[in-house]
Amino acid sequence: MSTASFFSKGLLDSGIGEVINPDTYFQTNLPPRTLPEDEKKVKEFVNKHNKAGRRIVLITSGGTTVPLENNTVRFLDNFSAGTRGATSAEYPFNSFLQFSLQPYSRHYTHSTNCFLDFIELKNDGHIEVISQYVPKMKSILEKYQKVKQEGALLLISFVTVADYLFLLRSVTQIMKDLNEHAMYYLAAAVSDFFIPSQKMVQHKIQSADGGLTLTMDQVPKFLKPLVTNWAPKGFIVSFKLETDPFLLVDKSRQALTKYGHQIVIGNLLTTRKQEVTFITKDSEPKMQLTEEEINNNIEIESKIVPELVKRHDEWIKNAQKENS
Amino acid sequence: MSTASFFSKGLLDSGIGEVINPDTYFQTNLPPRTLPEDEKKVKEFVNKHNKAGRRIVLITSGGTTVPLENNTVRFLDNFSAGTRGATSAEYPFNSFLQFSLQPYSRHYTHSTNCFLDFIELKNDGHIEVISQYVPKMKSILEKYQKVKQEGALLLISFVTVADYLFLLRSVTQIMKDLNEHAMYYLAAAVSDFFIPSQKMVQHKIQSADGGLTLTMDQVPKFLKPLVTNWAPKGFIVSFKLETDPFLLVDKSRQALTKYGHQIVIGNLLTTRKQEVTFITKDSEPKMQLTEEEINNNIEIESKIVPELVKRHDEWIKNAQKENS
Repeated sequence: MSTASFFSKGLLDSGIGEVINPDTYFQTNLPPRTLPEDEKKVKEFVNKHNKAGRRIVLITSGGTTVPLENNTVRFLDNFSAGTRGATSAEYPFNSFLQFSLQPYSRHYTHSTNCFLDFIELKNDGHIEVISQYVPKMKSILEKYQKVKQEGALLLISFVTVADYLFLLRSVTQIMKDLNEHAMYYLAAAVSDFFIPSQKMVQHKIQSADGGLTLTMDQVPKFLKPLVTNWAPKGFIVSFKLETDPFLLVDKSRQALTKYGHQIVIGNLLTTRKQEVTFITKDSEPKMQLTEEEINNNIEIESKIVPELVKRHDEWIKNAQKENS
Repeated sequence: MSTASFFSKGLLDSGIGEVINPDTYFQTNLPPRTLPEDEKKVKEFVNKHNKAGRRIVLITSGGTTVPLENNTVRFLDNFSAGTRGATSAEYPFNSFLQFSLQPYSRHYTHSTNCFLDFIELKNDGHIEVISQYVPKMKSILEKYQKVKQEGALLLISFVTVADYLFLLRSVTQIMKDLNEHAMYYLAAAVSDFFIPSQKMVQHKIQSADGGLTLTMDQVPKFLKPLVTNWAPKGFIVSFKLETDPFLLVDKSRQALTKYGHQIVIGNLLTTRKQEVTFITKDSEPKMQLTEEEINNNIEIESKIVPELVKRHDEWIKNAQKENS
């Protein structure tokens, strides 16, 4: 009964899969409508913190979607709740710009952890957090309010891979003048394949007639222009998620060599919350949580972030030596 | 520069798209691991409310995903935040089983509406909801606590289309004995296409070599066995989402005729929060919010639900007449 379904990639022999370059991508796809507004916010944010002598980290997180229709009902997505980026943003970077999932509130937005279970209506008409939940919520609230008061966090949202790429280009170019003081923490799970909008159908694909064949182009690799042109002096950290442990280090090192940036953090789908590998030009140390740390709900981002801040310090010192 | 990307469906001539029947689907795909647990919970829930003489509504909402790899990094998804189902569950159905997004807390989980902005730390160490937000939160909290105390809501979650279909079959078969007293409110956006697991690649698809061609089978239409065998006496409401206004009523009526159930609620992607069409055997009235209602944040579900409850009342009366 089963049909001739198959699954393949890289059918180069049939003319599919020619890789377009980033310039062509930007010429043939539409920017998000909110881009000018977002650029304005980012400029203000960058100017303010730059004047105050604070470093700025761009954190990207979450998955990007690939619409299959212009009036989009169906889309391709990447596994990503954006947890890596949102969690990392809660550890002491200096000040940061963030794409996607909101830090802080992530603690209370999962359906198994509904904040309505944590509050109660009092006789005097107030609504209070139930006392047993106060300590944890207090610590999150204090951090959140501090960041808010200092204006240290700017959230910019995206949905599609095109939204993401246009934003990424704009933001990194705005941050370019920060030179070595900027860090780029690229944890977003960017789609590798897409359907160019001029080849997309207008309306919802109907299902009445049988199966579906989709042929997608490859999304250009944007790390190349980012490292080379958009933010050439920045400290750039990318992430590589794999499912096959035998591929992880090789694929991560290939990316580092190809793009020439500073660090690739390799992680496996199944163990990403307990273990990562830092791939740099001359080393590849693993960072792991101990059994005890896991039991105490220590998050691996609490180790990743300070390590990166330290390496970024060295990056700045070296750049200043070279400049002097 | 652009490649030979194309987009087509229903390539029946190449042997793609043969439609398998539901039985074959269940024989060749794996149930979710949590199915036995979920079935147990559903049985307890149904027994309890049935004994108490309460009606039960099964609400399904949200999108289902279609994994592209066995170790899933990429998947196909449907546009759906599950808002229709979650919102509907807050209006007075009797007692209900719900698949997917949580009602009540939905009011505070959007990133533009972070509940951390609504609470404050007091000098005495309590955390309180800021007074201006109390009235709205009080009304939500009271409804939520009432439903919780009465055990009137059972939430069951799913991710993939296979999870959803196995759950749907189990739950409707458990509810079968409720006969005309059960309502099925099927608002989930179920994927129309999938890759059978035996044809799926094991690991993350690599992107180095160019584009991607995906060929997917059609997901069998499960409304047919649901209406005919799983819940033949139930009051069954399905949803039809389209983007093309000229197709909406025709497609909805086709579905009603094909499956033989009671109501198809047709809605358009762009206007779904303000307007729906009730397609029944002999009528197709529109239900719309007025300008004033929209300005007062009235939700269209506050009208859909009472209308369905009324029609379900009539359904029960008619069934009882026929039985007597």
